[in-house]
Amino acid sequence: MNNYRHIFPNDPFTPENIHQFSEGLTAASTVDLVDLIASRPIEEELLIFNVLPAAKSVRLFEYLPFKIQKRILASLPSLRVVHLLNALSPDDRTALLEELPTDLTNQLLKYLSPEERTLSIKLLGYPEDSVGRLMTPDYVAIKMDWTVRHVLDYIRENGKDSETINIIYAVDDDGKLIDDFRIREFLFASLDAHVKDLSDHKFIALNVGLDEEQAVNIFRKYERVALPVIDNKGMLLGIVTFDDIMAVAVEEDTEDFQKVGGNAALNEPYMEIPFFSLMYKRIGWLVILFLGEMLTASAMGYFADEIAKAVVLALFLPLIISSGGNAGSQASTLIIRALALGEVSLKDWWRVMRREIFSGIFLGFFLGLIGFFRVAMWSYFSDIYGVHWLLIGVTIFFALIGIILWGTLSGSMLPLILKRCGFDPAVSSAPFVATLVDVTGLIIYFSIAMIVLKGTLL
Amino acid sequence: MNNYRHIFPNDPFTPENIHQFSEGLTAASTVDLVDLIASRPIEEELLIFNVLPAAKSVRLFEYLPFKIQKRILASLPSLRVVHLLNALSPDDRTALLEELPTDLTNQLLKYLSPEERTLSIKLLGYPEDSVGRLMTPDYVAIKMDWTVRHVLDYIRENGKDSETINIIYAVDDDGKLIDDFRIREFLFASLDAHVKDLSDHKFIALNVGLDEEQAVNIFRKYERVALPVIDNKGMLLGIVTFDDIMAVAVEEDTEDFQKVGGNAALNEPYMEIPFFSLMYKRIGWLVILFLGEMLTASAMGYFADEIAKAVVLALFLPLIISSGGNAGSQASTLIIRALALGEVSLKDWWRVMRREIFSGIFLGFFLGLIGFFRVAMWSYFSDIYGVHWLLIGVTIFFALIGIILWGTLSGSMLPLILKRCGFDPAVSSAPFVATLVDVTGLIIYFSIAMIVLKGTLL
Repeated sequence: MNNYRHIFPNDPFTPENIHQFSEGLTAASTVDLVDLIASRPIEEELLIFNVLPAAKSVRLFEYLPFKIQKRILASLPSLRVVHLLNALSPDDRTALLEELPTDLTNQLLKYLSPEERTLSIKLLGYPEDSVGRLMTPDYVAIKMDWTVRHVLDYIRENGKDSETINIIYAVDDDGKLIDDFRIREFLFASLDAHVKDLSDHKFIALNVGLDEEQAVNIFRKYERVALPVIDNKGMLLGIVTFDDIMAVAVEEDTEDFQKVGGNAALNEPYMEIPFFSLMYKRIGWLVILFLGEMLTASAMGYFADEIAKAVVLALFLPLIISSGGNAGSQASTLIIRALALGEVSLKDWWRVMRREIFSGIFLGFFLGLIGFFRVAMWSYFSDIYGVHWLLIGVTIFFALIGIILWGTLSGSMLPLILKRCGFDPAVSSAPFVATLVDVTGLIIYFSIAMIVLKGTLL
Repeated sequence: MNNYRHIFPNDPFTPENIHQFSEGLTAASTVDLVDLIASRPIEEELLIFNVLPAAKSVRLFEYLPFKIQKRILASLPSLRVVHLLNALSPDDRTALLEELPTDLTNQLLKYLSPEERTLSIKLLGYPEDSVGRLMTPDYVAIKMDWTVRHVLDYIRENGKDSETINIIYAVDDDGKLIDDFRIREFLFASLDAHVKDLSDHKFIALNVGLDEEQAVNIFRKYERVALPVIDNKGMLLGIVTFDDIMAVAVEEDTEDFQKVGGNAALNEPYMEIPFFSLMYKRIGWLVILFLGEMLTASAMGYFADEIAKAVVLALFLPLIISSGGNAGSQASTLIIRALALGEVSLKDWWRVMRREIFSGIFLGFFLGLIGFFRVAMWSYFSDIYGVHWLLIGVTIFFALIGIILWGTLSGSMLPLILKRCGFDPAVSSAPFVATLVDVTGLIIYFSIAMIVLKGTLL
């Protein structure tokens, strides 16, 4: 891999010396420039950006993270902002504008040429997280009655601005999408063949209102580099390319991952997010879980007499309730991921539930046995559990089955219920399920203890 | 989207009626056929597969999940297996062969033509999870002194078997990679221009031994549809296309996700994995965590006298230790994901640690305050915590700071330590960190209690 960073000085770039390095900067690849800018002090961003030729600086801008984009926009003279905004590809421009505060977005929209402005307003009009926000209208559309020669000439003349020419779209006279072609089909065909001779009249398209997350799964399934976007009438509106989809996929997976650990989605890299934003993303759930977990103190207060009579019950408490939480974490992460990949859907709830009932009983029985033998063995070598060790063992055995079954059930059903109610299933994080199971598990444990130990220890 | 499923009967396909539907099956897209096969009984797999034209059946086979591939291989007559295996693209064949038991792989290798066999043995020789296992040698390579006309003619004649012609590679006479071109560059150039006139001598390439996970991050960064694979001397060995990389990315993310919930990686969709395989993937960690958590019972046994003297301490136990676990789960998921995306690397350990020390103190202080006020308020309205409620509140305040700090520290450092030792950071799952913090948190809690409450309650 090339890396241009070594040819630049360790000393800061200054308005005086920057032109010495302009050649090297212009020669560096866009991605290397992104790395370079990230590794240099903030003050140099604008210097580097300004020294590049116009076209290169636009391309670099498209690759930069939002935070740097914002700083550059704020520092550039308006005339250059006008040029830059109009030159951005429509999808990258949408991504930028949707992150900015509304009043700034409105101001910037005024800088756009009438056509670009109409386009941007239209793209921003699609719901957030919909395919409409990702698409670009820069594609190549052809007609069925053209010859291959005509198509290739047309691409040569009109394809330069297209986001991709790997896939070419055929539309009818109304602009309705009727087929897609890979560029290789035209390269391998005779120049005099007609488009319709090559057509198989089969294509996959995304509806403009489709959720981004579902679009990701369609891209994964069909393994396409680009997919066309149509409205409800089948009119071709634009295309979405795999690079935008890969970015969405990383973002969605990262959000799910962070949520499942009990965080709010950071939306920024861990090392870059400011400390207090990081705390804000963490403290919310931590407080909710803390307040939820306070119910354990209340529930235990209710059983305080039992604990006083049989301190031995308290000894096993963390062991038993945390096992329920662990079983629940397992189930919830499995279901959340399966939902995200589309492997499980809401209509499968009963199959999932049945599976998790058997899982809970199986896993609970197994851990229950281990718990029972632990009590039995310790009692053999000491009298820590007293004469009623057998009953304590039995309590623990049944409590583990009950709590682990409850854990797998809540862990698996909660994501489905959340999704059913229109919430993000990933909210049913491992800590959330664990807390839920802690509180209820405690009640299950003491209830079983009261039944088994009534008349002996209690 | 097209869906061909509705044109097929709800009744089973049989050897008698299958030919009625062969036209519809042949017309259906490969991905639709995969869906269809998944939705029909196992007995029909082979019928559907056999009714398709040879080329179509090969392509379908490449898309089928491994389980179905295996069943089809086992049922086909050897002659067809020979044809099928030789017709598969080399990367899909590697993916199939590496999943099969070694003796079966060796037997199947014998079915291959000498060239394909040499190729497959070579690809299988690269380490598992390396780029070598993903690559295909079906690419288009050109020379710098060719004209654009020559290149396009060459692609027309030799590009049909290529995995992609979206990217074309230039090599020198030794086969060393010297540049890459997008097909559009040739389409937009004059036919008499030379390749070297278009060259910028810049390219990104993957080393054949590179780990798949790193390759995924390079694809994401550079947004390419294909990347060339080179050996240490820079010789072009093959290419990796984005579809294989997307599949690896989904797999890796799913593994991390499942591990972070305390499961072993399932490697199969949740709904398809057999029950006992599912139990096997879950019970291992559950037992390890259970055994680990047993230490809480031992540790609490050690503090049994204190609990007997001050039952009130037991009441807050689940609340306090679970808060440490929650803070730890948050930190570990953040760091595991940041490591997977390459946002954090081992050399950042001190910056991460410093960040998490401040986080732990901040979050602990905040929750500690809530805990203290909870005790104070309850004491105001009842005498559940007795005359020493203030000391109990202070114990809880400091215990929370200590345990949450310990939680964020272990949650953040464990993934880094595991990675440093060559293990998968995702092993430091939310339940694992929670269990670790439970055991140590208990000791922190009772130690603080003994200091604060000495001479009063204890």
